[in-house]
Amino acid sequence: MEHKIALLGFGNVLKAFAELLLRKQDYLKQTLDTELKVVGIATNSKGMAINPAGIDLAAALQLVKSGQSLNTLHVGQPVNETFAFIQQVPAEIVLEATVLDPRTGQPALDYVRAALNAGKHVVTANKGPVAFGYRELKALAQSKGLGFFFESTVMDGMPLHSIAREGMLGLQTNRIRGILNSTTNSVLTRLEEGTSFEEAVAEMQRVGLAETDPSNDIDGWDASVKITILANVVMGADLRPSDVDRTGIRNVTAQDAQVAVKAGKHIKLVCEAVREGDKVKTSVRPIPLPLTDPLANITQTASAVTLETDVLPNITLIEGNSSPTTTAYGMLVDALNIGRGRR
Amino acid sequence: MEHKIALLGFGNVLKAFAELLLRKQDYLKQTLDTELKVVGIATNSKGMAINPAGIDLAAALQLVKSGQSLNTLHVGQPVNETFAFIQQVPAEIVLEATVLDPRTGQPALDYVRAALNAGKHVVTANKGPVAFGYRELKALAQSKGLGFFFESTVMDGMPLHSIAREGMLGLQTNRIRGILNSTTNSVLTRLEEGTSFEEAVAEMQRVGLAETDPSNDIDGWDASVKITILANVVMGADLRPSDVDRTGIRNVTAQDAQVAVKAGKHIKLVCEAVREGDKVKTSVRPIPLPLTDPLANITQTASAVTLETDVLPNITLIEGNSSPTTTAYGMLVDALNIGRGRR
Repeated sequence: MEHKIALLGFGNVLKAFAELLLRKQDYLKQTLDTELKVVGIATNSKGMAINPAGIDLAAALQLVKSGQSLNTLHVGQPVNETFAFIQQVPAEIVLEATVLDPRTGQPALDYVRAALNAGKHVVTANKGPVAFGYRELKALAQSKGLGFFFESTVMDGMPLHSIAREGMLGLQTNRIRGILNSTTNSVLTRLEEGTSFEEAVAEMQRVGLAETDPSNDIDGWDASVKITILANVVMGADLRPSDVDRTGIRNVTAQDAQVAVKAGKHIKLVCEAVREGDKVKTSVRPIPLPLTDPLANITQTASAVTLETDVLPNITLIEGNSSPTTTAYGMLVDALNIGRGRR
Repeated sequence: MEHKIALLGFGNVLKAFAELLLRKQDYLKQTLDTELKVVGIATNSKGMAINPAGIDLAAALQLVKSGQSLNTLHVGQPVNETFAFIQQVPAEIVLEATVLDPRTGQPALDYVRAALNAGKHVVTANKGPVAFGYRELKALAQSKGLGFFFESTVMDGMPLHSIAREGMLGLQTNRIRGILNSTTNSVLTRLEEGTSFEEAVAEMQRVGLAETDPSNDIDGWDASVKITILANVVMGADLRPSDVDRTGIRNVTAQDAQVAVKAGKHIKLVCEAVREGDKVKTSVRPIPLPLTDPLANITQTASAVTLETDVLPNITLIEGNSSPTTTAYGMLVDALNIGRGRR
């Protein structure tokens, strides 16, 4: 079975996707009898290309690496605007990983809506559409018999959403706790080692783990977006990131972290969603966790989530060593599952 | 959608299944538009019953509780032998949880084969058929378009097999490490507290966590069966439990356990499957694990598994607090997935 796909964006994640697909295409053909063919790539600053016969991914990677435009790979009438691209590209599945405004979810939210309205399945690694528009987009996809998958939005390619979709049917999830932001978790590990908060953040910026304006991570925005996704998708809530009771780690000192360690605890930025009656309440805050809590031992860039349900009391998932490739894998598995009819 | 199911066995697990189904039936109808109707129960010592209109599960539980036979719930021509029951029961899905001989997998292996040959989907919680006959039974099921699911064979209802089936497509798993036997893990926890090996085992026997002959757990047989299942299902091997390089915990002393703790480690009975070239090697042995290993912190009856793959470097799943209900849930979710067409 061949499935034609289009890429919205060609940054770190979708470049890693292209590399992963090149590496895995023979194996997928062999083991799953499936071929994913990229027939279009749309970017804001690196050009756009559509080729119904399939785009040469190695050439696309090479062009972008050498600072050239993807336009040279285009076949047919020119296209130079993303919404027009979404309409014209002859793909069954659109993979979306554009740049996100974490306060609004745009422009990804509009791209996903447009793709679904154009009758195309959507896979997104973008937290925005799911945190801000899950109910609407899911209903839109269902009304058209389309897939709308987003494994990579939380814990990258770790099979968290596929567990919720396939392995937790009929359960009611009453509580979710997670460590879902690598930057803050790495800063907290450094504080325990005695590094000051300012030094630790500067260090994260040097290794590319924190932005020039680190507020999105440090003040708990990214974590808030992720716990909102889990509350909405896994617990059936209809919340927004602004509903999260949010405290970042800006006021945690090296001394606080070291006092906690001496008391046998680790301070972690804990994301939480709890069912209270017919409401779900979400919070993000630094909490000292005892060593007996599996979340206490999550260090550096690892992430973890614990789900408490009415039947399985306690499920913990831990992911080590995330990278653009692990995020790309979540998009690959989503596309493969849509290809074999999962909705 | 209504799906008719039959139960082979009515011990702790399938009694818990009946209770879970009674508790969840309205919720399943409401949220998944699905009704599971039990039309037959077959036991060795508590009678057999078939009723195409549906067996009253509350009545069945009450009969067995009060030591009476299930025969009084039977409707139609008498049936008193399991293979005849498998043929006659008008069920789409057979749930199998009979008593296991861990050395041969029988009689469960023959029951599963008979059910598939009779055109019925199979859900088993029984390790035997999967450890001894996975390739044959999977091929048989596939050739007939039937489901053959076994979520509860390892880590009860923890969604481990559903992850492998849905969330890890196209990956190659190179290594699996797990703590998969509650009895030995609880004994090891007690040894660290200074209890002698003999006392710890006697204690497990008192609370029902170890059999009168504790060899199946203590000598690593149960763990060997489980790592064989994971090697065969997740890594594509074709091994048997007798292929496992197996060392139990019989020679671990309280002193060994305490020396390890002083060195910042916990001795755990580690199950392992490793890909070496085109072979997979399996082992079960007590190993001191450093605290940085997520498996080191698994205490009492919790269980855990770490998967290393060629794309996602490190996935760990931890289950706390297992019970007959968590095992029953694995069978429920398998039946629901078969009901919605998963194969």
